[in-house]
Parts: sequence; C-alpha cells; structure tokens
Amino acid sequence: MLEFTIGKTDPSGARAGRVCVRGHTFDTPAFMPVATQATVKALTQAELIGLGAQIVLGNAYHLYLRPGIGLIQQMGGLAAFMNWPGATLTDSGGYQVFSLAPLIEVSEEGVSFRSHIDGSEHLLTPESAIQIQHVIGADIIMAFDEPVGYPADRARTLEATERSDRWAARCIEAHQKGAGGTLLPNPNIQALFGIVQGGFEPDLREASARRLTELPFDGYAVGGLSVGEPKEQTFGLLAHTTLLLPADRPRYLMGVGTPADIVRGVLCGVDMFDCVLPTRVGRNGTAYSKTGKINLKNAQYQDDPRPLDPDCDCEVCATYSRAYLRHIYKAGEILAARCVSYHNLYLYLRLMERIRKAIYEQRYQEFADEFLLSS
Amino acid sequence: MLEFTIGKTDPSGARAGRVCVRGHTFDTPAFMPVATQATVKALTQAELIGLGAQIVLGNAYHLYLRPGIGLIQQMGGLAAFMNWPGATLTDSGGYQVFSLAPLIEVSEEGVSFRSHIDGSEHLLTPESAIQIQHVIGADIIMAFDEPVGYPADRARTLEATERSDRWAARCIEAHQKGAGGTLLPNPNIQALFGIVQGGFEPDLREASARRLTELPFDGYAVGGLSVGEPKEQTFGLLAHTTLLLPADRPRYLMGVGTPADIVRGVLCGVDMFDCVLPTRVGRNGTAYSKTGKINLKNAQYQDDPRPLDPDCDCEVCATYSRAYLRHIYKAGEILAARCVSYHNLYLYLRLMERIRKAIYEQRYQEFADEFLLSS
Repeated sequence: MLEFTIGKTDPSGARAGRVCVRGHTFDTPAFMPVATQATVKALTQAELIGLGAQIVLGNAYHLYLRPGIGLIQQMGGLAAFMNWPGATLTDSGGYQVFSLAPLIEVSEEGVSFRSHIDGSEHLLTPESAIQIQHVIGADIIMAFDEPVGYPADRARTLEATERSDRWAARCIEAHQKGAGGTLLPNPNIQALFGIVQGGFEPDLREASARRLTELPFDGYAVGGLSVGEPKEQTFGLLAHTTLLLPADRPRYLMGVGTPADIVRGVLCGVDMFDCVLPTRVGRNGTAYSKTGKINLKNAQYQDDPRPLDPDCDCEVCATYSRAYLRHIYKAGEILAARCVSYHNLYLYLRLMERIRKAIYEQRYQEFADEFLLSS
Repeated sequence: MLEFTIGKTDPSGARAGRVCVRGHTFDTPAFMPVATQATVKALTQAELIGLGAQIVLGNAYHLYLRPGIGLIQQMGGLAAFMNWPGATLTDSGGYQVFSLAPLIEVSEEGVSFRSHIDGSEHLLTPESAIQIQHVIGADIIMAFDEPVGYPADRARTLEATERSDRWAARCIEAHQKGAGGTLLPNPNIQALFGIVQGGFEPDLREASARRLTELPFDGYAVGGLSVGEPKEQTFGLLAHTTLLLPADRPRYLMGVGTPADIVRGVLCGVDMFDCVLPTRVGRNGTAYSKTGKINLKNAQYQDDPRPLDPDCDCEVCATYSRAYLRHIYKAGEILAARCVSYHNLYLYLRLMERIRKAIYEQRYQEFADEFLLSS
C-alpha cells in the first residue's frame, strides 16, 4: 500500500513530502512525465532517470487497446515491459474514452465505445477498468470516472458526477475483491486513487469530494479541470476542492499544466501533477524558458546563436543553438522533437525541485509570487 | 590538406589506415553516418561520439536549399552549426539533384532544377557546387557529377560520364581558385575528391578513372553503383575500378550499403563508405543483427522478450525487448526510431572495428568469407 509522509507544510498551504508505494519512492510535489503508450514521447527511460523523474504515468485506455493487457502481463507488468525502474501510475481511461473514442454510449453499467485505432467495440465498466489496471500493474491506479467538458450544463454535470461517484464505490469494491482474490497478479497491493469531479459547480465539487472521502481511497485526484475554462475558475475550484480532501493523503491534479499552473496548484495544496505539455509542445517546436516560451517557428530565431534558454544548464542548452534547433525542426527531424522535449522536461523537473526546496525553507508564497510575476 | 596513412595492406587487397584532414582524424575503412540535413536522423551528436563515429556526411544540395549556406557560414560552418567535433564530408549534390529535384535541365554549363521543398529555381554548376561546399566548410568535399541510373544505355552513359569528367576538371580549377582567392572562408584548405562514373560499362569506368586520376584530387570516389543493378555487377565493376585508382589516396564507395556490401567493398580496397540504410531501415522498424534482419512488423516478435540482437552489447539491446520495441514501433513512437537506428549504427561501427582489426591481423579474407557465409 501507499505511505505518504509530509515533511513540511508551508504557511501558504503548500506541502512537501514523499510517497512510498510498493518499494518505489517519489518526492512531492511531483511532476509525472506522461508515457501514454508506455513511452514518454521521444525520450529513453535512461534519459528520464537522468532528468530526475521518479514516477511516470501510463494510460490504461491506450495500453488496453495496444499492445493489449495480456502482453503486458506476460512481460511482467508495465514497469518491466518498458524497463522503467521507478514508480508508475495508470490513468483508468475514463478521460480518454470520452475524449478519443467514437460512438460512446454511457449507462449505469459503464461506457461502450469503439477503439480509436481499429474501430473494434469495447465496454469499460468500473470493474473492468480496475481489473485492466490490476493486470497492467502500475503502483498507483485510478478510479474510472466520467468527466464533463467545458462548458457543461448543471443537469449534465450533476448526472455525470453522481454516476462517477457511484462508480468510485464500485471501483473500491472491485479493487478490494481483486486484492483478496485471483484478479490481482501483483504480490504487493496497488494504491487506488479516487477522482473528484463536479464540473464547474462549486457545490457539486463539494458533494463529490464529500462522497469520495467517505471511501477508503489511498489518494484523491481532482479531475475535469483545465479543460478550457478560465484560469481563475480552475484555481478557484481547485482551492475549494483541495480544502475538502484529507490532509494525510496525496492530492493529484490531473492533466495540469504549464509551469505557472503547477506553481499555483502547489499553492492549493496539490502534491502530484501530470501533463503532456512539455513533450507535446516540445515536439511542436516550443520550448519553455525562465523568461517565457521560445517558438522555434518564429523567424527571429533563424540566426540566433544562443541556447534555447540561456539560464538552463541542460545538455541541449549546452550543445545546440536556437538557429540549429530551428533548422532541424523546420526540416522535420526527430532530433528537434528529442531536444525540445528533453529541455522542457528538464525545466519542469528542476521547477519541482525548486518548489520542494522553497516549501522546506518555508518561503513558498514568496517563491510563487516571484515566479508568477516573471512568467 | 589530407594525409592518408596506410597502416597495413592485407593479402586480399583490403587496407587499414588513417585519414587526417584539417586536424580531424578517422580510421579506415570508415563508415560515415549520414547527416543529410546536418543531423544523423534520430540521434544526437553525443550519441554518435559514443558510438565511435569519427566522420559524418552532410549534403550540400539539402543544406544549400535549407537552411541556406549563408546561415551555415554565419554559424561557423557545418561542424560548428551542428556542434560536431569530428570530421565532416559533404556530397556535392550531383546525386540529389538528379534523384530528388523536379524539372531538371542539363547542359554543359550545369544543371538547372527546382527545389523539392518550395519549387524555387536554381542552377548548380561545377563551380557553384564547389563554392557552396567551400562555404559549408566540411573537411572533405566532392566533385559535382552526373550519375546515371540503372539500367542506362551506353550512349547516355558515355555522354554523362564524359561530361562529369569535364566537370571534374572545372571543380579542381574552382577549388584551386577558391583556395587562393576570396571564396574560401576556411583557414585550412579542404580536401576535394573526384567521383569515377561510367555506369555499367567497364570500359567507360576505366576511361573515367583514367581521366580523373590525371587530376590532383585528394581522394577518389566510385559513384553510380548500387542503384538497382545485381550485386555481382556492383562488385565486379567496383573491383575493376579500384584497381585503376592510386593506392596512396583514399577510395570512397558512395552510398553503399548493407553490412555484407561493406565487407565486400573492403575486399575491393575501399577505405570509406556512407549509407542511409542503418538509420532509414531503423526508422522503418528493421534491425540488423549478426544473424540477419529483424523486422519488427513481423508478428513473431510480438511477445519476444529477447533483445533485438542477443549478441549485441549496445544500450538498446541491454535495455529493451523486441516485444517492447515492436509495440512502440507499431504505436508510431519516436523512441522506436531512435532505438533501432542507434542499434543499427552501433552494429555498423562495431563491424568497421572488426574489419580494421582483421586487416591489421592479416586475416581479412578469412574474416570476410566467414562474415559473408553467415549473413
């Protein structure tokens, strides 16, 4: 099971600590690089270790469809399959079913959908989503939920949220059954997190948080935020929600976000983050830097001999000029995707170190104010 | 200028030695990874160094069109632009103009063509091809020639070969003029290689070799082979041609080939090779191994826990299974292209080491026989 030790809580509410799960440890606040298909796009596992990543996130929806969970089980589970020595987490697939799969039908039972790869028909239920994640075998697995998009009307949000919360109870039951029965191939029990939904309605968020915290989840995620709503709404709802979550369990803000979003999320007491941004924008030629974004498509970088970020000491910034990276980006070369993704993840993971240090030194509010002013 | 020291000549005719040019050294027989657009596809320069690459090949045609030679000059030349500490060679663009560019018109003056990128009109002449390569600034540059494809009729081959040889003399003149005049931005003089053509006609190959060896080239390439003709013809013509080339200059077989081709080329006294195969087939999911090719598309590798090549000690083979690599290849992930390209180049560069060792130990014929039997 999961052990969460809070080393220090800052006066701002930010906390720094450590999660230990099935022999794997990661420091919080943590950023989890996203390995949707069992690979963090463009990087090797050795590079991720070198970058300081301690946990990566896989996606049960993608892995279930390809390569299939039988193969992953045969190869010893996700971490062994991808040869990743650190901690792992899988998202249940709720978000992906609703955002990627065509022909969705939702019932109390679950969600029937077609694969976005080959059109084959599938049914995901809370029980099967948990069973799939048991077989994939990540250290932390997620409840199966139904997020709502933005905007969403109140009736639709209410229906989806209440159903998600009923599904959460079924996930707990399936997980407990699996842990004691034959479904679970792992010698150590996986941790299961619940996901608070509630769309953009503070009282529905509150009700969802209340129902979920009555269930014995090992941690609590906040889902359905940062899907297009204004930032002020995101962080207003986040602060409102995290206050209702037990202080002694990790809090995970799903799919968020930019460096500034992470700094603000930590202020709301969040311990874990994941986001495709550093690798996705990296593949598209955009680098984060201490002073803003560098979009290599811009002609101004054509003959710029400086590194992506003059303040960065990563290998890419020590090696290549903006002019060179712009050239290989425009030429469609893989090295461009590699370099900018690497740099961006380096920046994210160094940011997490600075965040943790500021919390341990009890000066997180000051750190955050300064960071948000300059970004 | 270029210094070529032959350390040992094997009874078979294979030779091992060292080329030193403008302070850069590489051991021969050498394999030059191809960095068409100033990047060896999918790999970093640091990885190439780690793999033992000592010289890489850029392409004047591609670099002239994108990013343009003005930028490369401004950035200090090709090696500085791509931050490559080893030796560099550029192909003149002759082959690429004829194979990639639409709307070609050939005259005695040169070749007019449209860019395959944006359709813009350009004229390449022997003089401009040399000038472009002066500005790009590789250590070794190539004469501008007109290859013929396969099959090619004798009249067409005769015309193209005689013109190529007249162009070769103009290249020498342009190079000498550049070296003494204002065209050459490099403090040390670049080496210039001639390219023997002659299609598939032994007497035309002979005539071309004779004309070119009367010119003071620093080395001699054999061009226009391995373009679709049967292998026996390739190596028959190659052996015929290399015999006519001066023993004290490096011999370079352009664009060849598979590991077996390289082993056979060395038997014909070739010192330098380049080929896109290891990275191109790598991106397409095919790995070379000591016992043949592994095509990750094949279903037989679906649950194969072994490394790409069980006899290989590269980082990829130490880390990932065929099953994993097949999954990420099928999922379209960049890591697959990286891993298989890396492994293939590792295999090529280890092969070159084994070739050199066998020559130094005067047992190259035995090595080649054994290699060709098992491949």
